[in-house]
Amino acid sequence: MGIIVQKFGGTSVATPECRDLVVAKIKTAHDKGFNPVVVVSAMGRKGESYATDTLIDLARTAYKDIASRELDQILYCGEMISAVIMTGTLQAAGLDAIMLTGGQAGIITDNNFTNARILKVDPSRILSLLRMGKIPVVCGFQGATIDYEFTTLGRGGSDTTAAALGSALDAEMIEIYTDVDGIMTADPRIVSTAKILDCISYGEVCQLAHQGAKVIHPRAVEIAMQKNIPLLVKSTFSDEPGTLITNIVPEDTTESNVNDRVATGVTYLANIAQIKVNLHDSLNNIASFNIFKSMANNGISVDLINVHPGQIMFTVSEELADKAAAQLREFGCDVQTTLDCAKVSVVGGGINGVPGVMASFIEALSINNIPILQTVDSHTSISVLIKKSFVHLAVTALHEKFNLSC
Amino acid sequence: MGIIVQKFGGTSVATPECRDLVVAKIKTAHDKGFNPVVVVSAMGRKGESYATDTLIDLARTAYKDIASRELDQILYCGEMISAVIMTGTLQAAGLDAIMLTGGQAGIITDNNFTNARILKVDPSRILSLLRMGKIPVVCGFQGATIDYEFTTLGRGGSDTTAAALGSALDAEMIEIYTDVDGIMTADPRIVSTAKILDCISYGEVCQLAHQGAKVIHPRAVEIAMQKNIPLLVKSTFSDEPGTLITNIVPEDTTESNVNDRVATGVTYLANIAQIKVNLHDSLNNIASFNIFKSMANNGISVDLINVHPGQIMFTVSEELADKAAAQLREFGCDVQTTLDCAKVSVVGGGINGVPGVMASFIEALSINNIPILQTVDSHTSISVLIKKSFVHLAVTALHEKFNLSC
Repeated sequence: MGIIVQKFGGTSVATPECRDLVVAKIKTAHDKGFNPVVVVSAMGRKGESYATDTLIDLARTAYKDIASRELDQILYCGEMISAVIMTGTLQAAGLDAIMLTGGQAGIITDNNFTNARILKVDPSRILSLLRMGKIPVVCGFQGATIDYEFTTLGRGGSDTTAAALGSALDAEMIEIYTDVDGIMTADPRIVSTAKILDCISYGEVCQLAHQGAKVIHPRAVEIAMQKNIPLLVKSTFSDEPGTLITNIVPEDTTESNVNDRVATGVTYLANIAQIKVNLHDSLNNIASFNIFKSMANNGISVDLINVHPGQIMFTVSEELADKAAAQLREFGCDVQTTLDCAKVSVVGGGINGVPGVMASFIEALSINNIPILQTVDSHTSISVLIKKSFVHLAVTALHEKFNLSC
Repeated sequence: MGIIVQKFGGTSVATPECRDLVVAKIKTAHDKGFNPVVVVSAMGRKGESYATDTLIDLARTAYKDIASRELDQILYCGEMISAVIMTGTLQAAGLDAIMLTGGQAGIITDNNFTNARILKVDPSRILSLLRMGKIPVVCGFQGATIDYEFTTLGRGGSDTTAAALGSALDAEMIEIYTDVDGIMTADPRIVSTAKILDCISYGEVCQLAHQGAKVIHPRAVEIAMQKNIPLLVKSTFSDEPGTLITNIVPEDTTESNVNDRVATGVTYLANIAQIKVNLHDSLNNIASFNIFKSMANNGISVDLINVHPGQIMFTVSEELADKAAAQLREFGCDVQTTLDCAKVSVVGGGINGVPGVMASFIEALSINNIPILQTVDSHTSISVLIKKSFVHLAVTALHEKFNLSC
């Protein structure tokens, strides 16, 4: 039997009209002979009663430092309510649906509440339900410890649930339904000529996500990649084909140059602060070590790290900039902080091996008079730190320079 | 260690101000050296997002015949949200509280979803938490099957949870906190001289509840009675001593005549229909059997049954009257239905053995020109069926006749 995992995000299950569209997607898969396994997120957005953020706020109103174990128990309700409603809607449509929490679906995690890691997936209950002809509707974002304590998987957890189930069930496909038509070359609110990608590799989509694109959680992609299960990102609200994430490029792709293409997309992350530390002595390595150790001990993530003789540069998220600078001054460091920065990245599987890519990148920025504060590159991406006010200009310029509208 | 179970109803946990009062009650018990085990209901009333009835409506909007297993999963969320909020509030007050679902608290039920029966209570986890100095906050109304399926216990389920835990933990006391000062001799909206009872027996309170008083669920009383654990019904919002439910009358009671008192309270149930069946043949017993079997097969509960030669009378709830009459007419019975009836009862542990009680009862009604449609009596109650329009008059007259204001 061919299993297909279909994950629906919060906006897809928010209203009766949306849920009818979800039923149609599941029915289509079912009618094609697939065994659908449905994964749902909590309904709606912040401010709505059953949304994840609303439940967090509710718990924190009682006590801002409420224990994370209790926080996970209230968060469990968001997906439980959503999954019951979706199951009822499927039952009303004559489909034999059954609701399972993450724990009931066999997702076993560690007890790192609010950000638990999946230890293993026991697919036996889902397999037995599928053999009975049922359609399991699984609460995304959830797991359970071996002691049946409720855990949640952190941000993007529903994608992770879908990927973990797809992997454990050896699914033929994992479909990620959302409110956009697929993965785009850039944010269409910035670049009007941005287009939907027909296909993209696991590695590229991970890079896009890490560099700011809100499409699919990289953890989910990594899980699917390990078993080479294709992921399809598409819209609940249209019949567009969506974006296929895989390592195999289908022959009927309309992008004939897909293997040759240099860049896949342009992304950005805003609300970043740059920190420059000028070192007074010659013991650079020890100083660097102490600086990064102190950041780590204070739970401050650093990015875009450049270490030079006499100077260290890195970025932190803007709200942690003061804390980071204060820490460094305690060491007697000479610290300069630049707020209102943004990181703009061009991602592409083949970007590393292509001569002249960095030159093109710099050229696009220079022509537009955008000052470069820092750069960093990896084998699948080039990133630049600029002032936030230049983000639109930079993204548009890079999108055009790398021919992403074609 | 002395364990005290403290159950708080929906109105007691509905707002931050209420929850602060709940914290004070728990703190008081804790400071006295008790180990409190807290049980909470879902927050608020119908129309509020996390109330039981709102969650039922939400599920039924998706599908009016949603499977009862799924209904229980959404209902679970009402108490989970409430218990997490209450746990957070206790943690904020410096108390080491920990939230448990009904299943985690060891309440094992059958799989009769939405109205599950408790099969056993395994108190080991709560006992181990108490030994660690923690305050368990248990979701009322919930259980789990041995396969960890979520179940709910039906109406009044949180009282049942409190009693079942009290029994399994050999608690010294089960406190039922509500929004009234205790159990009253009659509905104070009808009888202005109604007063709070200092104490009442298990049997009497069960009768009061069965006869319409909304104080505590009779299932909970029966469970506490089996181990002779005292129940105390009192208000979250005052320091009134409340009503003690037990078989032992405390020596310091202010009701010196407690063992002599004939009546404990007057209650009523409205929205009742009387059905009279005139039998044509002499085979009364077979006819009666068929009549009651047909009611049972159609899920219609009957009450106030009087079987006479040639005539059978009984009552059903008003919304089932048409269905019942139609059924009986199928047998060719001559059926008369009287709508808008009410059952008024005087409850008292000693009512059966006291000569002249029925006479006093009838006298009170006759003086007030209230026509009696039917009567029934047991060893702890006398009930009369009258037209609904006479309820206020009858309750007031009986309350006075049996000296319940003294």
